[in-house]
Amino acid sequence: MLESEIYDWLKKENINTPPYQLFGISDEVDVNFYPVALKIESAKVVHKSDFGGVVIDIKNREELQQAQKTILANIKAHGVDLDNTDHLIATQMCKGIELFFGVVTDPVFEKVIVFGAGGIFVELFKDVCFIDSEADEEEIKRAILQTKISALFTTGFRGTKYDLKPIIDLIKKLQKIEASELDFNPVILTQTSLTVVDARAKFDKIPVQTKKLRHSPEIFNPQKIAIIGASQHAEKVGYAVAENASHYKDVYLVNPNLDTLFNKKVYNTIAELPDVDTAVMAIPAKAIKQSILNLVPKGIKNIIIITAGFKEVGEDESFLAALAAEYNLNIIGPNCLGMVAKNINLTFGTSDVKPGPVNLISQSGAILAELMDKAAEDNIGFDNIISVGNMADVDFADLINSYEGTSPLNLYIEGVEHGKNLLRAIRKSKAPVNVFKAGKSKAAQKAAFSHTGNLSGNYEMFLGLLKSTGVKFINNINGLLYPHQFKKILVITNAGGPGTVMSDLISDKMFELNAAQIEQLNKVLPSNWSKNNPIDIIGEATHERYLTTLKVADEFGADAIYIIITPQFMTDVDQIAAIFSENTFKTEVFPIFLGGEMVESARKFLHQNKIPFFEELNDAASFL
Amino acid sequence: MLESEIYDWLKKENINTPPYQLFGISDEVDVNFYPVALKIESAKVVHKSDFGGVVIDIKNREELQQAQKTILANIKAHGVDLDNTDHLIATQMCKGIELFFGVVTDPVFEKVIVFGAGGIFVELFKDVCFIDSEADEEEIKRAILQTKISALFTTGFRGTKYDLKPIIDLIKKLQKIEASELDFNPVILTQTSLTVVDARAKFDKIPVQTKKLRHSPEIFNPQKIAIIGASQHAEKVGYAVAENASHYKDVYLVNPNLDTLFNKKVYNTIAELPDVDTAVMAIPAKAIKQSILNLVPKGIKNIIIITAGFKEVGEDESFLAALAAEYNLNIIGPNCLGMVAKNINLTFGTSDVKPGPVNLISQSGAILAELMDKAAEDNIGFDNIISVGNMADVDFADLINSYEGTSPLNLYIEGVEHGKNLLRAIRKSKAPVNVFKAGKSKAAQKAAFSHTGNLSGNYEMFLGLLKSTGVKFINNINGLLYPHQFKKILVITNAGGPGTVMSDLISDKMFELNAAQIEQLNKVLPSNWSKNNPIDIIGEATHERYLTTLKVADEFGADAIYIIITPQFMTDVDQIAAIFSENTFKTEVFPIFLGGEMVESARKFLHQNKIPFFEELNDAASFL
Repeated sequence: MLESEIYDWLKKENINTPPYQLFGISDEVDVNFYPVALKIESAKVVHKSDFGGVVIDIKNREELQQAQKTILANIKAHGVDLDNTDHLIATQMCKGIELFFGVVTDPVFEKVIVFGAGGIFVELFKDVCFIDSEADEEEIKRAILQTKISALFTTGFRGTKYDLKPIIDLIKKLQKIEASELDFNPVILTQTSLTVVDARAKFDKIPVQTKKLRHSPEIFNPQKIAIIGASQHAEKVGYAVAENASHYKDVYLVNPNLDTLFNKKVYNTIAELPDVDTAVMAIPAKAIKQSILNLVPKGIKNIIIITAGFKEVGEDESFLAALAAEYNLNIIGPNCLGMVAKNINLTFGTSDVKPGPVNLISQSGAILAELMDKAAEDNIGFDNIISVGNMADVDFADLINSYEGTSPLNLYIEGVEHGKNLLRAIRKSKAPVNVFKAGKSKAAQKAAFSHTGNLSGNYEMFLGLLKSTGVKFINNINGLLYPHQFKKILVITNAGGPGTVMSDLISDKMFELNAAQIEQLNKVLPSNWSKNNPIDIIGEATHERYLTTLKVADEFGADAIYIIITPQFMTDVDQIAAIFSENTFKTEVFPIFLGGEMVESARKFLHQNKIPFFEELNDAASFL
Repeated sequence: MLESEIYDWLKKENINTPPYQLFGISDEVDVNFYPVALKIESAKVVHKSDFGGVVIDIKNREELQQAQKTILANIKAHGVDLDNTDHLIATQMCKGIELFFGVVTDPVFEKVIVFGAGGIFVELFKDVCFIDSEADEEEIKRAILQTKISALFTTGFRGTKYDLKPIIDLIKKLQKIEASELDFNPVILTQTSLTVVDARAKFDKIPVQTKKLRHSPEIFNPQKIAIIGASQHAEKVGYAVAENASHYKDVYLVNPNLDTLFNKKVYNTIAELPDVDTAVMAIPAKAIKQSILNLVPKGIKNIIIITAGFKEVGEDESFLAALAAEYNLNIIGPNCLGMVAKNINLTFGTSDVKPGPVNLISQSGAILAELMDKAAEDNIGFDNIISVGNMADVDFADLINSYEGTSPLNLYIEGVEHGKNLLRAIRKSKAPVNVFKAGKSKAAQKAAFSHTGNLSGNYEMFLGLLKSTGVKFINNINGLLYPHQFKKILVITNAGGPGTVMSDLISDKMFELNAAQIEQLNKVLPSNWSKNNPIDIIGEATHERYLTTLKVADEFGADAIYIIITPQFMTDVDQIAAIFSENTFKTEVFPIFLGGEMVESARKFLHQNKIPFFEELNDAASFL
């Protein structure tokens, strides 16, 4: 689409465009709206500037004629032969703040709008946001607020606040336009107008992804479960899964060569099984298809394929999605660790899984295994755990859309294929969605590709689009173990230095002490305490002062209290550690035992008592 | 200084300025160099734009006359009465890339030059760098490279690379100009010119700091040492210091009421002491001054004052600097943990200090105490350790300037007073300087102020100036324990997910495997290994495969190898842990044992064997 055609379209859409005039390449050129820019208008020249096809700030007829000569010579020098189908376009120059609006077609997210600072610094500052073509006005606003230039519309700029409405209106129009690629740069913003002064667009056909977003709450509600490939050999995953699951009554083990295992009857064939709605498969890849077919008559709904050796090693797995569609199944995996639902452990991870507030869904089985292990140590519990593996059928979007609870959904994502579905599911979710994204850097994308067969995609776009739908991003994988409800945090410390460092790390989450609270602390602390959060209870503090301070601070209404213990000369670290096993607090309390040898016994004590604690300030801060 | 005066000065300095013409406020206005900007030129109006004192893009005489009326009305509306000492200035408009040049006077760093992207987006994008007035050309270049706009001069912009020389020349001129405050915005850059088109300046007298930079290598070379206030009471710091130091022959204990302590004779008065060059004081604050005077006849050079209760609680300590100047002493502290030099431990921190490669200098005694404790646990050693406390006399700059070795100087800094001295010392240092800076955020600055009496200052300026002198900034306090020589790192992992996350965390430090190295690994690894760094040795890897891979990778010439152990089904974590006690490697090797319960015994084993390891990917990455 040529610039003049875009202007015509824009005018129909009631979008301001500058006055312009078209000329044949050999026409005598003159206009009545100087100053102007003169540009080549030809399908043969897409990047006009790079071909010397643009001259700006033309003030009169003589300069315009000179510009015409210059442009034609430049284009010729680039080996392009122009003819009478080509034109020159003169557009009026206008002044104001330069913005950028664009449309891109992404393999993962399909049509996406780009908005941000425009003009010559687009490439240098990259101050842009990404907006889904299906985003509503609130989501568009959240996206815009991710740019620095959004200050124009919020705090204002040099005393002038600009109206956001024309920006949103133009974005909404771009959400509807059938362009595969579009650049408006610059778009000139003044207090009274928004004018597109340079435009470029392509209208190629965009292939639309057809995967249907699933709503299958039964995934989270296994009733009667078969373990296909239960094994007596401790080195096989079929052993570990069967052992973890065998505690549950309605679990049926299947193995052609066994009669009993873990005090349970073993079925030799699927045909012998009673009806089951869920099956976990730890059998050779080549036996998967027939086993699924055999399960269909049993009323099967959910199939979890632990077996590896599919897409991740170049083998075909498309038959799984086909089977799922044909028989209306939810297939999880292959190449996964299994799942935990309703306190039934159908994984080959740790057997020690407690109930708790978080749903953990991971694209990496190993990350999931280590997080389950860490959670067991720290007494952290889960609502559901799902290892999605290769996502041959059920993906993140399907799981979010199938979960009907309100507990946080914490996702470890390396890459996704169906971005639009993911955004749709997040928008509809009643549960908050928290994401750790692996594969930000090129080096990591290479690593991820080699192990799951998933391309990680453009990280900035992924981050921007998901943030606008309300996703919270987590910077530390251990953050996937927490529900992320800590917004105002109190810090108690026996040393100013670590208190200062912690304040830097959580500066936007520091609880503000009021006068009455300071007065309460004055009564129990020496006069040189900090009178401020962090509450510095001074280097000579022993366990009595820690406990007294904690009891007072527990009433303040903070979301969490960090207690920093720096091993100093007077610090009775073991007795301080005992505080956390001997007392309960209303507020969530996280001890941070810094140092090494001097706190070793305290750390050991906390481990033995399954009391979560941190050893580094960074770790305590980065899980938030 | 008015704009026209600055233009005159600039012309003398051979700096391009646009053609301009001055008018009395009631003069008939016209020029022969349209288009122009018309601006108020009056000492009564500093921020011209805010007062409506600027009209741009004036194309002819009529518009100029209209602009004159508009400006005079705006100024009047702001309540400023103009008279015949005031003027209007018409300057020619010019086009190009807009840059910003400025001069600021900072309480810590005194005169500093600011350079970056200019025009209307200065406030929004803050793409600026800070340059010391004493920086040489190399340092100026390092500063400029910290801005995004520096791409104009390096990679170029839209096919055009700009010459850096005129930028550096203008910065050098600003380094010499006697301005206390100066803004050139914008300065218009084209391929052939650099033109200052708007300028504002103040020439207030700048108070210059007079603290002399110390060169006293004897600080690091204590010979005969007195411990003033050695105590027999285990709860006193004078006990801990005496105990730590008593192992050393030439340490003399002083206490009026004791005869022996730790099998050493105790001197009852300073007068009885033999000559000493270094004294550590752990006595009441009020006794400090007389004790220093008593030590002078003993040939004292270095005094380390551990005693607290000075500036940090609002008490005067200026007498210490006065005494240091009068008697040519190096006074460290007060309110500090002490120091370690030549393996003599003169602190009340842990007694377990080993020799090693790093100098650790800290403004927080508690941070130092915990790092010493952590180092003891991880078998990490030091060249020197110094707790600087309140820095009443000797400061960071003096220490850097006095150290004649080449081992890295790792500094924990909350705030400094004499910024120019610090920069001068870093420039001259033969040892690399690594800095952790606390007090980045407002919340942390408040916390730091309440505990050391040091204002933390403008973090961006501190960061920028120190980076330009070649300082490396550390993001994790534990990073202060390492010499920071790890530039190319190999990662060995038994799981793709953690490998991907680690690649994100150290993406700029990933060692690149060559074809021969991949071939060597092909010989010892299963065919589905990653063929790439991270070296993914697959989930079923046991200790044999870890050891084989490590032995091969040890020959590759990486600076360090991270070995990620994710507890999976087949992982024999205890035998993997044993690898690190039973083998030595040429390359620095860091095991990372992820998870919880399943790796507990392995972690315990490594602790007992004092083998440093990490429990989180973030910790392993952030110390670099």
